[in-house]
Amino acid sequence: MQKPSLPKGTRDFGPLQMARRTFILDTIKETFQLFGYQQIETPAMENLSTLTGKYGDEGDQLLFKILNSGDFAKDVKAEDLGNGPAALLNKVSEKGLRYDLTVPFARYVVMNRNELTFPFKRYQIQPVWRADRPQKGRYREFYQCDADVVGTDSLVCEAEIILMIRRVFAKLSLQDYNIKINNRKILTGIAEAIGEAGKEGPLCVAIDKLDKIGWEKVKEELAQRGFEASSVAKLAPLVALESDLAGKLEFLKDFLKSSDTGLKGVEELEEVFGILEKMGQDLAHVDFDIMLARGLSYYTGAIFEVKVNHVSIGSVSGGGRYDNLTGVFGLPGVSGVGFSFGVDRLYDVLDELGLFPAESHSSTRLLLAYFDQAGFDYALGLLNEFRNAGIKTEIYPNPVKIQKQFDFANKKGVPFVGVCGSEEISTGTVSVKNMATGEQDKMTLPEVLAALA
Amino acid sequence: MQKPSLPKGTRDFGPLQMARRTFILDTIKETFQLFGYQQIETPAMENLSTLTGKYGDEGDQLLFKILNSGDFAKDVKAEDLGNGPAALLNKVSEKGLRYDLTVPFARYVVMNRNELTFPFKRYQIQPVWRADRPQKGRYREFYQCDADVVGTDSLVCEAEIILMIRRVFAKLSLQDYNIKINNRKILTGIAEAIGEAGKEGPLCVAIDKLDKIGWEKVKEELAQRGFEASSVAKLAPLVALESDLAGKLEFLKDFLKSSDTGLKGVEELEEVFGILEKMGQDLAHVDFDIMLARGLSYYTGAIFEVKVNHVSIGSVSGGGRYDNLTGVFGLPGVSGVGFSFGVDRLYDVLDELGLFPAESHSSTRLLLAYFDQAGFDYALGLLNEFRNAGIKTEIYPNPVKIQKQFDFANKKGVPFVGVCGSEEISTGTVSVKNMATGEQDKMTLPEVLAALA
Repeated sequence: MQKPSLPKGTRDFGPLQMARRTFILDTIKETFQLFGYQQIETPAMENLSTLTGKYGDEGDQLLFKILNSGDFAKDVKAEDLGNGPAALLNKVSEKGLRYDLTVPFARYVVMNRNELTFPFKRYQIQPVWRADRPQKGRYREFYQCDADVVGTDSLVCEAEIILMIRRVFAKLSLQDYNIKINNRKILTGIAEAIGEAGKEGPLCVAIDKLDKIGWEKVKEELAQRGFEASSVAKLAPLVALESDLAGKLEFLKDFLKSSDTGLKGVEELEEVFGILEKMGQDLAHVDFDIMLARGLSYYTGAIFEVKVNHVSIGSVSGGGRYDNLTGVFGLPGVSGVGFSFGVDRLYDVLDELGLFPAESHSSTRLLLAYFDQAGFDYALGLLNEFRNAGIKTEIYPNPVKIQKQFDFANKKGVPFVGVCGSEEISTGTVSVKNMATGEQDKMTLPEVLAALA
Repeated sequence: MQKPSLPKGTRDFGPLQMARRTFILDTIKETFQLFGYQQIETPAMENLSTLTGKYGDEGDQLLFKILNSGDFAKDVKAEDLGNGPAALLNKVSEKGLRYDLTVPFARYVVMNRNELTFPFKRYQIQPVWRADRPQKGRYREFYQCDADVVGTDSLVCEAEIILMIRRVFAKLSLQDYNIKINNRKILTGIAEAIGEAGKEGPLCVAIDKLDKIGWEKVKEELAQRGFEASSVAKLAPLVALESDLAGKLEFLKDFLKSSDTGLKGVEELEEVFGILEKMGQDLAHVDFDIMLARGLSYYTGAIFEVKVNHVSIGSVSGGGRYDNLTGVFGLPGVSGVGFSFGVDRLYDVLDELGLFPAESHSSTRLLLAYFDQAGFDYALGLLNEFRNAGIKTEIYPNPVKIQKQFDFANKKGVPFVGVCGSEEISTGTVSVKNMATGEQDKMTLPEVLAALA
């Protein structure tokens, strides 16, 4: 007899975890919808031709590939063996599992471009699979939760991303967090301004270590990466800059005066803030981080990253504006801006901060309990009344001792037990016990409905 | 440049389809929860040792297998080739995609048996994958939607399944349908009573064709399947039986008087009906079908199947009671009863009958439209007011001609457009156009909120 197990890096979600995940996802979905985003879903399997070459060599390695059905090995020859997996792969597999939601979305947009109404705002919440080495907090199956608007370069979209993040976090009772924002054009401009045009990539990688290793070490790394000493010297005042938002913008307008691209980035950022102001919104939680470079190779405008303070978990949301979502599938010029929530990380943050509502433990509100057959029959007759009033109600289905019924309610996290004894039967009442406080009240049906609905 | 495509047998769900699927699934989820069922999810991938041997030889063929990551072919030798896929399979693959929700649920119960509270009521709504030949209405990826209660043999569960089906169908506005119900023990009893004990399987297969081929042909088939002429003769009055529920039960009590098992089946059925009566419920839509044999090899008690009348689609729901969910994983004695909704088929039924609510077309209620920059700024200032009131609101993000904004609302199915012109700005109003009726009303903000909330 086999002892069953889970594939490594995968998880079951039991009732408690599902209730909590649903709490997070419902909050996110409701917010996306409030801002006009529409849900789509794409298949778990995509053709390998759709997936490969989109995530770099490492990504191609991490794709889960699906064996062709039937006699998958019929085209394999002895001489195909021993040359590593690449030679064999295209003979035995033509499909892979979704690796992210961006490439399937791009494919969807291309395949449906004549039917879609642009600007097209879509959200998508589905699992993705990566053959990563499993470790704490990193799984081979995990959910992504993306929202993108394509077919417009309006900066209203960027402003609304900030509003959506703030709304989701408020609904989740998260208060201490930063929405870091930057603009790729500013990074491009900085590289130009210090005389190292085109090298914003290595520049950001090095600067990113500033907090950890200090400016002296960062300077060494920049030198190693081929930056001129004079360039690094020009960079110093920017690195040393400590200022509020207005001061940062003022500084950059001077620092970037030789770079049209850089100035355009500052202008875009100011416009996003201006739109927020027109919307009657402040800049709470918004933190302009001049060196933020998340996903640099992909983003062309705004860049976002959200971190919750005082928790052990990294960024829980991020995104940015891109120029060319679908070019690789033959449809150029589809620009847009998108962001995503890291659902697993948000779960861990809420868990660490104890912010999950107690309600989400069990959805059942009321268990009807009884001592004997007469009580059982009485309770059966009441079930429908409670359910018709929308109260999630159960009855313990077998006649067992009432203590066992209470144990069941306790273990399942049912907040109220309605005792149906001989006195309750004769008076047409139910004795409702609040499992948290221990209080018990004999109530008429309308009273129960009013108390629990 | 590659032209992207979908793997055959898979589908994208666009916004309209997703809204409609969500309408169906939310109805089902809400009902499951009202009856105390809790949601779980299991991984898309399972170990092949969990999956193989559970679905018969054909099922094993239809499992999607996942290539091992890394150098998957490192153990493959030349002599492994040319002998068909079976010899190679265990060298290149150890995981497969979920084929149904029952086996993963059984695995889950076994792995979590010490933490679960029994009776355990779970529901699960996830896609499954089968390497079937794709054809109309049959896909390689489709959703299953299962509810099971395990760890009790109470017939209250069977009665509540009937209630849940009726509630879901009422909420979906489905009125003309039958919940066919039978009991495996009755089928066993019939085989015993006609002197063909143990042959209820072939008996049901033959009888199932009665409507199509007539009694004479069914008799021939029974003879071919080894039934004695005297047995077939004993069966004739049962086949000819046309009666109401009471008549059927009366007939069977006599017909099955030699079979304890058969009489037990009748008794269980009567108890289910008795529980419904104690619950104050009638037998609307309930149709006792003496020959219903869905999934015979698996079920040991009640058997359910639901068909909508006057549509071209087969059964949309079904299930039954089983004895031994988890025996194959080394945990005997876990009995239960479960049923599932065919989400794709329900979708097709509602589509065929035109029962999808118009509301589900788009979630956005209001598009703010404008003529110029002043109107755009004014609209930006209003967005938050509407959204804070829970009204799903959008603004066309780029300044374009107002006709294009109306076209956008039309195509996206937004029911109201709020025009922000110079007059509206000066009076602090919005002119709200009902896109269905063409009516347009100038309203103050509180009026708009009242009208649309």
